[in-house]
Amino acid sequence: MKNLNVIKIGGNIVDNPEALEDFIGKFSSLKGNKILIHGGGVLASRMSAQLGIETKMHNGRRITDAETLRLVTMVYAGWINKSVVASLQAAGCNAIGLSGADCNAVPATKRPPIPVDFGFVGDVDPSKINAEGISKLIEAGFCPVFCAITHDGEGTLLNTNADTMAQSVAVAMSKYYDTDLFFCFEKEGVLYDKDDDTSVIPEINREKFHSLLEQKRIADGMIPKLENAFKAIESGVKAVHIMHARNLGRGIGTKIK
Amino acid sequence: MKNLNVIKIGGNIVDNPEALEDFIGKFSSLKGNKILIHGGGVLASRMSAQLGIETKMHNGRRITDAETLRLVTMVYAGWINKSVVASLQAAGCNAIGLSGADCNAVPATKRPPIPVDFGFVGDVDPSKINAEGISKLIEAGFCPVFCAITHDGEGTLLNTNADTMAQSVAVAMSKYYDTDLFFCFEKEGVLYDKDDDTSVIPEINREKFHSLLEQKRIADGMIPKLENAFKAIESGVKAVHIMHARNLGRGIGTKIK
Repeated sequence: MKNLNVIKIGGNIVDNPEALEDFIGKFSSLKGNKILIHGGGVLASRMSAQLGIETKMHNGRRITDAETLRLVTMVYAGWINKSVVASLQAAGCNAIGLSGADCNAVPATKRPPIPVDFGFVGDVDPSKINAEGISKLIEAGFCPVFCAITHDGEGTLLNTNADTMAQSVAVAMSKYYDTDLFFCFEKEGVLYDKDDDTSVIPEINREKFHSLLEQKRIADGMIPKLENAFKAIESGVKAVHIMHARNLGRGIGTKIK
Repeated sequence: MKNLNVIKIGGNIVDNPEALEDFIGKFSSLKGNKILIHGGGVLASRMSAQLGIETKMHNGRRITDAETLRLVTMVYAGWINKSVVASLQAAGCNAIGLSGADCNAVPATKRPPIPVDFGFVGDVDPSKINAEGISKLIEAGFCPVFCAITHDGEGTLLNTNADTMAQSVAVAMSKYYDTDLFFCFEKEGVLYDKDDDTSVIPEINREKFHSLLEQKRIADGMIPKLENAFKAIESGVKAVHIMHARNLGRGIGTKIK
């Protein structure tokens, strides 16, 4: 099978022009098949405030009502996605910007309203992803660039977590490609000591994960990320990489396999 | 050569939920290869007012400053494009929503600032359109749905007139397909008497156009539309159709050839 790199960047890179420019250059230089999935950033929240849309939260998680759905679709699928695509094109990468609705690439199911109604939020089942359609785009020489907007197949757009979207796409594409999944964020990788950026753990397997957990050496926020990484690997992804965006293509960071 | 229908709808259809639903159904039922190009509608102006962005005009034409560019990209490439794609997918049409930046489909040149600086406005040269890339999408079974946002190839998005975009895409695609261009709007077609909707002229050629002009039987607003239609035909388009959106697929309206 051919190789494929699925690379996710978060809102903190999208929001930082220098970091984004640096990332665009590195991503464009990566050889081989690749997919980019980008998060949202602060623009949606800022515009939401400007437009007087009330932000509703439940236990720290945003509720996507109809007005918020429209706004995040505008910001994520419109401004951010097209700006990133235009920059990638300028850097020589033949990007094609997509939401999950386009080519029915990533269908989702609206989360049930019980126990909490999160509104227009979509949960993704990797087995429903149109991996064949996405691979047609790749084989035609295009580089898919996804925002985390999905649809229910009945005409309604849905807001999806960008990490989940990246992981689901990577799992689905594993049917056609030897797939590596990269989470690029603002840390060097998984750290032995969360206050020491030089303490990156280069490689983690299941066994090591359990012993690190027992020693309580993994920061709380990192535990679900690692659990999801192992789930992805069990579902066919070759390896998951957690790393700083600036190190893309350098083989630095934490490799989970 | 295979056939291709390039169909343009204006903002008045995008703004009217019933008209849009009716159009989505008819467009989805059309057999064969097709491309949709949609205009903007009033949402951008409404949001512009809500956000306190000053609308700058010159002789009745909007000037696209940086803030306005961001807003129209959000509205046209984000909300409208993805809503239309989700509705088409629900109706069984395998739509893929694109701006001109995606796959470098429609590159443009920023209009020179002299004599009037219209800001981030892009003029399109049909010979620069990536017709090969667009035809790859069609041959892969996708139906391209374009908003009228383009890019300069150097990372900057540009705002382009949707009629111009439709016409340029139709001209470019004529290299690969026998291409018909449809302008769907709120009138029945070109009328003998602009106040009588039943006075549709079924077919116009160059000769007839000149005699109608001499008789002053063509409304002022229609003259540039017809001149552009003849230009498209001289550049390879098989025929241009001007018609009411509700008559799509019915062979009613004005055919220019």
